[in-house]
Amino acid sequence: MPNVIFQIEGGNEVNIACQTGDNLLELARRANVAIDAPCSGNGSCGKCRVKLISGEIETFPSRHISEEEYEAGWRLSCNCKVLTDCTVFVPDIASAYQSRMKTADLSSPKEIAIFEDAKANMIGGGIEFKNHFVTTVIEMAEPTLDDTMPDAERFTWAIQSALGVEKVDVPFFVMKKLASTLRENRFTVCVKGEKKGESFLCMDVCAPDDAAIVGCAIDIGTTTVTMVLVDLTSGKILAKGSSGNGQIRYGADVINRIIQQGKPGGKKNLQDAIIKETLNPIIANLCKTAGISANAILRLCVAANTTMNHLFVGVDAEPVRMEPYIPSFFGWEGLKAGDLKLPANPLADVQIAPNIGSYVGGDITAGTLASMIWDKDEMSLFIDLGTNGEIVFGNRDFLMSCACSAGPAFEGGDISCGMRATDGAVEACVIDKETMEPTLTIVGDAGQKPVGICGSGIIDIIAELFRCGIINAKGLFVREGDRVKRDEHGMGRYVLAWENESETGREIAINEVDIDNFIRAKGAIFSAIDILLQSVDMPVEAIDKVYVAGGIGSGINMRNAVRIGMLPDVELEKFCYIGNSSLTGAYAMVMSDQANAKCAEVGANMTYLELSTYPGYMDAFVAACFLPHTDSSLFPSAME
Amino acid sequence: MPNVIFQIEGGNEVNIACQTGDNLLELARRANVAIDAPCSGNGSCGKCRVKLISGEIETFPSRHISEEEYEAGWRLSCNCKVLTDCTVFVPDIASAYQSRMKTADLSSPKEIAIFEDAKANMIGGGIEFKNHFVTTVIEMAEPTLDDTMPDAERFTWAIQSALGVEKVDVPFFVMKKLASTLRENRFTVCVKGEKKGESFLCMDVCAPDDAAIVGCAIDIGTTTVTMVLVDLTSGKILAKGSSGNGQIRYGADVINRIIQQGKPGGKKNLQDAIIKETLNPIIANLCKTAGISANAILRLCVAANTTMNHLFVGVDAEPVRMEPYIPSFFGWEGLKAGDLKLPANPLADVQIAPNIGSYVGGDITAGTLASMIWDKDEMSLFIDLGTNGEIVFGNRDFLMSCACSAGPAFEGGDISCGMRATDGAVEACVIDKETMEPTLTIVGDAGQKPVGICGSGIIDIIAELFRCGIINAKGLFVREGDRVKRDEHGMGRYVLAWENESETGREIAINEVDIDNFIRAKGAIFSAIDILLQSVDMPVEAIDKVYVAGGIGSGINMRNAVRIGMLPDVELEKFCYIGNSSLTGAYAMVMSDQANAKCAEVGANMTYLELSTYPGYMDAFVAACFLPHTDSSLFPSAME
Repeated sequence: MPNVIFQIEGGNEVNIACQTGDNLLELARRANVAIDAPCSGNGSCGKCRVKLISGEIETFPSRHISEEEYEAGWRLSCNCKVLTDCTVFVPDIASAYQSRMKTADLSSPKEIAIFEDAKANMIGGGIEFKNHFVTTVIEMAEPTLDDTMPDAERFTWAIQSALGVEKVDVPFFVMKKLASTLRENRFTVCVKGEKKGESFLCMDVCAPDDAAIVGCAIDIGTTTVTMVLVDLTSGKILAKGSSGNGQIRYGADVINRIIQQGKPGGKKNLQDAIIKETLNPIIANLCKTAGISANAILRLCVAANTTMNHLFVGVDAEPVRMEPYIPSFFGWEGLKAGDLKLPANPLADVQIAPNIGSYVGGDITAGTLASMIWDKDEMSLFIDLGTNGEIVFGNRDFLMSCACSAGPAFEGGDISCGMRATDGAVEACVIDKETMEPTLTIVGDAGQKPVGICGSGIIDIIAELFRCGIINAKGLFVREGDRVKRDEHGMGRYVLAWENESETGREIAINEVDIDNFIRAKGAIFSAIDILLQSVDMPVEAIDKVYVAGGIGSGINMRNAVRIGMLPDVELEKFCYIGNSSLTGAYAMVMSDQANAKCAEVGANMTYLELSTYPGYMDAFVAACFLPHTDSSLFPSAME
Repeated sequence: MPNVIFQIEGGNEVNIACQTGDNLLELARRANVAIDAPCSGNGSCGKCRVKLISGEIETFPSRHISEEEYEAGWRLSCNCKVLTDCTVFVPDIASAYQSRMKTADLSSPKEIAIFEDAKANMIGGGIEFKNHFVTTVIEMAEPTLDDTMPDAERFTWAIQSALGVEKVDVPFFVMKKLASTLRENRFTVCVKGEKKGESFLCMDVCAPDDAAIVGCAIDIGTTTVTMVLVDLTSGKILAKGSSGNGQIRYGADVINRIIQQGKPGGKKNLQDAIIKETLNPIIANLCKTAGISANAILRLCVAANTTMNHLFVGVDAEPVRMEPYIPSFFGWEGLKAGDLKLPANPLADVQIAPNIGSYVGGDITAGTLASMIWDKDEMSLFIDLGTNGEIVFGNRDFLMSCACSAGPAFEGGDISCGMRATDGAVEACVIDKETMEPTLTIVGDAGQKPVGICGSGIIDIIAELFRCGIINAKGLFVREGDRVKRDEHGMGRYVLAWENESETGREIAINEVDIDNFIRAKGAIFSAIDILLQSVDMPVEAIDKVYVAGGIGSGINMRNAVRIGMLPDVELEKFCYIGNSSLTGAYAMVMSDQANAKCAEVGANMTYLELSTYPGYMDAFVAACFLPHTDSSLFPSAME
């Protein structure tokens, strides 16, 4: 039996025995070694690179590994069979990957302003930001030989009289610590919990100075997870954070993740990857920043797509993928943090924004809630640009939704120099048609050098390359120049920043594979919009408003998005970027019982259109995979 | 650092490092080596014997170890300080101890008849043996592309229409397995749960042929644990079992256990000893016998004293022991099997019969429920003879209760040849005054040889020894004869069976230490009765009925119990032995929602008298530690 040693960059060594012929990527997964593999091992993404130090491995040539790289030992791990004892170097994806995925949402004043606007809109629409959580200090008489009432009754009576309730529930978690907490604090304690009418559910008993009560809003994206910690009394955001979804090593998209969870032990692996590896460290970090204990988190609201919801709770997601595409659940009542061992009060409700169908999930319900389109007379189109693209169309009378698989391009994934819309991201670009020289707008302070390209930047670059005739309608380079380079296979790229101009010392460019990936992403989105409008028999002119949401970045240039055939060609003033509306919706659910109820209502009233079985969708998609489209009459303004 | 190897008889070796001077019993506990130590290490019981094989240990002489035994290496582990590396042989207490503690309750036709009588009495008293648990098979249409309702809704709707309920709760435990169970059984499944009015709590979803629903009644005694598994539909007892309480190695009585749980890690140790080591194996065993899965257990009812209840749930019991003697709880709502990781349906309610005071617990509430004295006009005295003796006096208008520490003598503990009232137990005895020869009644089939003595046997033997003038009022031997032997220290004993007459090949005898232990036990009981009657200012003549409960055995001779001054001197026809009424009460709570509610009511209406602070109790106890009493006028019939 060969033995493989993984040398992890900047970290330890992991040793695992295997069978001759075992796949190296699978082996790394078994050994719990994190290797970035967005395509889940089919050889297409080229991200799972490792370096062979010693030993023999069978492999096949790959366009992702140059000859020099191969000589130096670089291999795609998904493309390796172990033949003998080996030592393999694993580059630290944590740093590269995490920096690519660093906090984007709510990280800039612009993002915060967008969030505050959305909140104000909801309040303006009549949603009260009030909840039923209570924190209060109660005092009891200490027991004596003449007053031998047991702790539980003494405590219950004190709560009844302090809060004016009839029924008090004191669950196991609180009962277990009651005797010692009462005595350590001489029978003056802080009580936290839910007050509903005449009932109080006691969720914690603490020292009197430990009075914080907190909620946690979580947006679980296929690629990125974002979270805010909210003071349940004031609504103030106490801390925020995000990171890549740890499940990414099981595949970049929901289909690959579902396949992986269907393997033996898969459900647990995928659940551990999102809960233990991703959510728990962020929550712990936010609690530290906010200076609170995890038990102070009394409610968690999760906005996630249908598959992410299934993987999060550990329920088999296979039926979501297989015809007739049946989710196990839409909404879910009564789920507790303790059920999932989340680092929060074990009695805290975990509220999952309800799913609508197999591929339109709670992230869209929450986002739709936040957009307020369900409250308006005008016809709105709501577009969430994530790894899955989801579209909602309608108004207060009806809401129609569908989803398409866009891939991670909008969040900077699947793009060689891609990154989230954070410091150093190229978020906008203009190219001089004559000289072909670019002018870049970089996220961050003045003087910030470019690090990579975020979604809005890519839109601009492609639109400009196309406008300047540098690429053709298929996204291939058709004009030569200083900034257009070709590699050994003849693949063209456009250099935005030379090595000495970038923050990292590496060239920042966009190549034909990147452009192709992006065209397919935008094609998926546009064809979905197209079909959704067809299904309700409405023309593009019927659209009164277009809300664009997602991690694509606040710098999105709507004119360019129309020019490349990604968004429908409507008047520019109809477009509105509303940021991470899933997170905004989850925030509203945390703070407001009314928003919570409204979210369930929005979910129940939304109709789901399954695109994968919809006649004509594939044709529409293929037609949309051009700049701007095979039918350019759809984009009159782009053709000007 | 010395290293100690424990060689466990018939088992493995356990190795632990320690400090020079460490106590050997403490070390065994740290190493999780079970050594019987009813006195919890104060050197008084002589049960914690081990044999030194090699190494040096510092020890003190003990009356429990003879010179020959000492030479052979025998030591009391509580009395040993480790000086060097040692190897120590630990006799297998499991077999000796378990056989001593083998199933007694409901093991004989007589016991079962007593149980059935008690059940019939409850039904006669108007208690309906009905509950709200449901098991039913439901059929659903399989999903298609035209019928894409998610599993949770499909399931909920099917239950609503099958059971005619409005609200269906499908908790995490069920949701997690719903998708796969539905598909494995082609959407025809068995559903189990609680139906309350218009609501249904779904507790399990199974294959359609797995329809059993079961309850578990548990009596947790300080010394012995007894359990029955009950079919929730028919009320039939499916399996029964018992064993010693694994906490016994932390002390024989509640006081020692409370002290032990107060040490670092103590709460967990004591909880593990009762749950992991004691209850879980019995439950697993009963499930196997009954051929059901643990998830079929939908309700558990526990009858236990106040301390056992605290240790069971893992709540600090220290305030129970310390003035002003405050239990953490009386009743407890909402405790689930999952909270305690009991091998049952995690959603099953664990219903704890409510405590009344620090030393009158749920075992007495449940026992009182079963006795039906709360439903009668006549004045009843209810006496539960366990390690703690508890007394209840009253009728439908009032109920007064108190407790005393009797020690394990009534259950055969603290008695050199003691055992529970099971096969081979001497349960009755008559001694010829002339020849001093005994005539024994043995539990079991004809020809059964004696194994030991159970509580009822000890009463007879002591009463007969006293009547024949063989022992005096202090329990010391004052007449010599063939059957009266003395050891090297001059301690007298009476031989009931010679070595060749017993089942075990060992002599069966009762010695002065046994008699002294028993006299203190009966003295505690009688003085408690005495004080309880005084507290309500009632004479012995006011007693209309005396119910005797507990593991003392159905053979109890009430006349002899009066003769030795254990029970008050009332007409014999007023006495009634009702078996293990705690278990009967717990059984009633499992099967009957009405009994459940009534038990809470009985608990709430009972007054608790704290004997330890009651003036005059110590004097009454000392006066009762004679045969029959210092004031023989209290026992006119005994004096005839």
